[in-house]
Amino acid sequence: MTEPIYDFRSDNVGGAAPEILEALVAANAGTAAPYGDDHYTRRMNERFTALFERPVTVFPLSSGTGSNSIALAALANDFGSIYCHETAHINVYECGAPEFFTGAKLVGLPGADFKLDAARLDEALSLAGRGNPTRVQPFALNLTQPTDFGTLYALDELAALCDVARRHGLRVHMDGARFANAVAALGCSPADLTWRCGVDILSLGATKNGAINAEAVVVFDDELAREIPYRMKRGGQVLSKARFVSAQLARYVADERWLERARRANAHAVALADTLTRLPGVSLVAPVQVNMLFLRMPDAAVAALDRGPFHYYKLGHDLRFVCRHDQEPEGLEALVRCVRGAIVPAADLG
Amino acid sequence: MTEPIYDFRSDNVGGAAPEILEALVAANAGTAAPYGDDHYTRRMNERFTALFERPVTVFPLSSGTGSNSIALAALANDFGSIYCHETAHINVYECGAPEFFTGAKLVGLPGADFKLDAARLDEALSLAGRGNPTRVQPFALNLTQPTDFGTLYALDELAALCDVARRHGLRVHMDGARFANAVAALGCSPADLTWRCGVDILSLGATKNGAINAEAVVVFDDELAREIPYRMKRGGQVLSKARFVSAQLARYVADERWLERARRANAHAVALADTLTRLPGVSLVAPVQVNMLFLRMPDAAVAALDRGPFHYYKLGHDLRFVCRHDQEPEGLEALVRCVRGAIVPAADLG
Amino acid sequence: MTEPIYDFRSDNVGGAAPEILEALVAANAGTAAPYGDDHYTRRMNERFTALFERPVTVFPLSSGTGSNSIALAALANDFGSIYCHETAHINVYECGAPEFFTGAKLVGLPGADFKLDAARLDEALSLAGRGNPTRVQPFALNLTQPTDFGTLYALDELAALCDVARRHGLRVHMDGARFANAVAALGCSPADLTWRCGVDILSLGATKNGAINAEAVVVFDDELAREIPYRMKRGGQVLSKARFVSAQLARYVADERWLERARRANAHAVALADTLTRLPGVSLVAPVQVNMLFLRMPDAAVAALDRGPFHYYKLGHDLRFVCRHDQEPEGLEALVRCVRGAIVPAADLG
Amino acid sequence: MTEPIYDFRSDNVGGAAPEILEALVAANAGTAAPYGDDHYTRRMNERFTALFERPVTVFPLSSGTGSNSIALAALANDFGSIYCHETAHINVYECGAPEFFTGAKLVGLPGADFKLDAARLDEALSLAGRGNPTRVQPFALNLTQPTDFGTLYALDELAALCDVARRHGLRVHMDGARFANAVAALGCSPADLTWRCGVDILSLGATKNGAINAEAVVVFDDELAREIPYRMKRGGQVLSKARFVSAQLARYVADERWLERARRANAHAVALADTLTRLPGVSLVAPVQVNMLFLRMPDAAVAALDRGPFHYYKLGHDLRFVCRHDQEPEGLEALVRCVRGAIVPAADLG
Repeated sequence: MTEPIYDFRSDNVGGAAPEILEALVAANAGTAAPYGDDHYTRRMNERFTALFERPVTVFPLSSGTGSNSIALAALANDFGSIYCHETAHINVYECGAPEFFTGAKLVGLPGADFKLDAARLDEALSLAGRGNPTRVQPFALNLTQPTDFGTLYALDELAALCDVARRHGLRVHMDGARFANAVAALGCSPADLTWRCGVDILSLGATKNGAINAEAVVVFDDELAREIPYRMKRGGQVLSKARFVSAQLARYVADERWLERARRANAHAVALADTLTRLPGVSLVAPVQVNMLFLRMPDAAVAALDRGPFHYYKLGHDLRFVCRHDQEPEGLEALVRCVRGAIVPAADLG
Repeated sequence: MTEPIYDFRSDNVGGAAPEILEALVAANAGTAAPYGDDHYTRRMNERFTALFERPVTVFPLSSGTGSNSIALAALANDFGSIYCHETAHINVYECGAPEFFTGAKLVGLPGADFKLDAARLDEALSLAGRGNPTRVQPFALNLTQPTDFGTLYALDELAALCDVARRHGLRVHMDGARFANAVAALGCSPADLTWRCGVDILSLGATKNGAINAEAVVVFDDELAREIPYRMKRGGQVLSKARFVSAQLARYVADERWLERARRANAHAVALADTLTRLPGVSLVAPVQVNMLFLRMPDAAVAALDRGPFHYYKLGHDLRFVCRHDQEPEGLEALVRCVRGAIVPAADLG
Repeated sequence: MTEPIYDFRSDNVGGAAPEILEALVAANAGTAAPYGDDHYTRRMNERFTALFERPVTVFPLSSGTGSNSIALAALANDFGSIYCHETAHINVYECGAPEFFTGAKLVGLPGADFKLDAARLDEALSLAGRGNPTRVQPFALNLTQPTDFGTLYALDELAALCDVARRHGLRVHMDGARFANAVAALGCSPADLTWRCGVDILSLGATKNGAINAEAVVVFDDELAREIPYRMKRGGQVLSKARFVSAQLARYVADERWLERARRANAHAVALADTLTRLPGVSLVAPVQVNMLFLRMPDAAVAALDRGPFHYYKLGHDLRFVCRHDQEPEGLEALVRCVRGAIVPAADLG
Repeated sequence: MTEPIYDFRSDNVGGAAPEILEALVAANAGTAAPYGDDHYTRRMNERFTALFERPVTVFPLSSGTGSNSIALAALANDFGSIYCHETAHINVYECGAPEFFTGAKLVGLPGADFKLDAARLDEALSLAGRGNPTRVQPFALNLTQPTDFGTLYALDELAALCDVARRHGLRVHMDGARFANAVAALGCSPADLTWRCGVDILSLGATKNGAINAEAVVVFDDELAREIPYRMKRGGQVLSKARFVSAQLARYVADERWLERARRANAHAVALADTLTRLPGVSLVAPVQVNMLFLRMPDAAVAALDRGPFHYYKLGHDLRFVCRHDQEPEGLEALVRCVRGAIVPAADLG
């Protein structure tokens, strides 16, 4: 028997939640029209409409990169720019997919805690050359919530950013790859976090929180939805048996379990941060607000971690640990024990 | 209780084969690295290597359009052209996805039985202006096997076409959305049908034959595989939890069931064609060689079909019926009864 | 001293007309704002407005390919198709530039005399799958007037085609690389030939008729003009010293000389066709309606032509001769003499 | 008679140098093959080969944006990135043309005096994720020489940057829109400034220094030149009557006048900077090394300038003045007088 390895690489290393898998299996009965013209997809739309407290149009996809790219393309012109934080996922980790689907330039701005700042955005947009044909024309603001470093925009921060965007003629896209973790952490409603703040289109990810390659583009403006089916087909994002994704998404939001899982994952990360940062030499790169920790720690601790039994990521000098809702308690304990053991002299551990 | 509707729209209206669904469910255990760096994907590669009797590189995707587009992009330059039959799926039913991913122009040629003809291809390529900068430069030949009208290239036809392509400097892509049906019908090996004829890259679809959004790009030339991971990411085709597709594909080719299903589906179609074309006024638009029938029939028969209980597609004046391996026998019988009833006077049915 | 070579390759092998060159030289005085914000460009706009008998917006460019591509891009969506004759210049001789600038698929239709036929266009558009997300969506009709084979659409043919386009929701682009030759041959007004028939946007070429790399995009609909400056910049089509193109174009249409030149060029071609087709074995590939001849002739005549002193093009089995307004009379005579000498036995020439 | 306006907007507001205009006019004689297959273009190639002291391949274009875009596209892959200074012309003032032609992401780095720094570039490239499919892959370094703020890289700075690029697998493009001003200011040879430092491909602009829409892509590596004709055609960058650009470029480098003009323009700017910065409150935004000044000055001075008779540009808080070789002496004097008058109390001017 092999020793277990505790996996902190990402929340997408886990499998599906039981009820999601059941929904997928249940969708196997009978025939259904392909390409999203089926009753599972219609039910998904109804449930998202209920969840967001207003009519929405929802498209099922299997890739988060595809979901972000399609959502941004729905906003785009051909000579435009998308404003985002310089560390935004779309700007760093999608191999240029948003540019490919939109033809746009991504403009990454700096900002504390890996978040955009409304005043800085306002200034950047003021200098962007609206109406000058030698300059790309801004059309979209991307808000990654939570950010790729696990920080969160407060509702009033979101509203302020959306307001700046609106004044400069931009539409707003939210990258919610970990939307559940944000809703759980902020304790607000999905509606509060999105269209009530001014978000026009949302990429809501379920994959990292218990689904199997199930992502949704949620559109809060009918007009934006009109061209999406063509853009999805042209982008290879339409699923032949879409029902198997729609069935997952419909089940995903059918009760509170998606939020409970997110809450558990968040709590693991916060507790871990709390414990580890008490150790000398361990510091946070970013505040821990959802289920991700970015840490720096002494070389000895890093060396100890590398001896295992752990999976985690290094990004430059930072160590990244992501907690899943079903993170093994013994894994969490082993991680703390390992770091503490490397840092605190054996005598002191007494 | 609602009356059953017999569904002949497409083979993608069906669900998953039991063993495929089991494999998917089994893959839910434990954690696995995302994005295809997992042992399910490695096992899929091994099994495809065995199946094709040579080392291959296989990429798991969830969309057939994506699979075709990525495969073609792996062959492309930026000012090129792809030769295909004018009715090829990539030319008609993918909303420009191949053009989007490759930047190329699709050149659709006519040809009997919806198939390309080697002599005509040779002539077209001779006039294509190789080396003339005012002309797009041919780089790929697309062979859809079976064609979108359910006809098949014989092995010697494939070899002749690949030979023409090679002489003109083109690489060859096979769109095998219904690859199983072609292998089953021709009774040849997957190797015979592809690289032994001269195919460089294959889009092998499993979705229409018992899988859930599981498609494979199979690369017979290492060099062609090198850039595919970047192109897939940039095209939103990389799956976060790729293991759930790889596990299906690994299971798909693990035994003979994929071919048995295809054989059954083909047999349903051939039998249906045989029966229906004995009726006066019913004629085939294309020879029935796999699981698809394209028919013309008297208006009275069409009207009868439209009264139900059937789902099928009309394409202009043609009626399309696609048979699944698990097509209900009573549906097949009902279909024949309906058409016969509309055509043959009741007295004659005696 | 070298023997003169008579050049029938194309009308772009000639230089500039005297008054056009003078206008270019005159524009060298003083400074002027770059990128088209200068008084030469404003004057060009005024003169085109007078010429077309209605307000137009005109953009100066130096490339005909650029002009066609920008005009089509002004009409385009991202998942669309452009209908044109299969032999259209944009479809064959621009190395995919229209596809590159528009992201669209070009759909080439056959048609007698290298012209589109309204009924066939209507049928093709009826089958194009408007509203079906698996199909590219038609947005533009391209009319090449004169065609690449030197044939002309009559005004009622243009009106009928534009009417079909309009009914199917397409806008109309005219490729007028040899617009002057068409106006001269038909004896109609520029307005009659364009917007009065239903043309929305025109690529008017002056280069082939006495200018130096001077092409105009003429827009008959304000709304279509709005995004063109951005598309031109993004496409590298904005000229730093645009005044030198605008000054040429303003002078080009300032009097009747552009039409006189075109008339002369047309007359040369018609006379040549008249003489040559009296010879046995010489036949026209297309009716000669402007300044281009496409001929087939006996091998002996082709061999004689190849011994010189002539430049001309072969396209497959066809010989192409294009006449310039300043085609040397001795060149025209020498050409006839050469062909006749090869075909008619010396005795008969007696 | 209208009061003269002294024009400091840009060096492209001027006309052509006499000998350049003469060369253009002289090229009007006779016929010549279109699209660059003419003897003017061959002569241009020979002269550039002499100028650069090695075989080069030169392509004539009419747009600087086109020249940069084509040069970068010759280096590109489809999922790549181009590193440049954040203020680089290609990053700010070309409306996304480089992205459009290359499909790449532009990565703008900060750097003192508007120049890239070799150490910072090295670090950025080290963190760029070479080989990681979620990251765009760096393929080109863009060096703008002089920069858009009129500063210059020294030869050893260029060599160091090219060396970093080479070590990370990038090719090097130089944007030499004002190449003459750089050569003149540094007193080096064109060879020293380019391929001897490690530059692979150069966009050499002649338009801003006495030519009419004449730009050259100069390729120092045969292999890179191979696909450029196709890319140029597809990008609408091939000129029908290319001889009129090639004739200018051949004449441009035929003697020393191009450098003399650049020297004069540079000298005007340096003298102006010297005088103006002695005035209280006037400061430079960037060192003046070629023919461009970027200044800040008191509001009163700006207001005085706005009352005329001057044309110049404001970029945010900075004032930009560009000097032409033929800048009117009275314009230079008037500018100084205006600023001094607004800043220095009348009494002090006594």
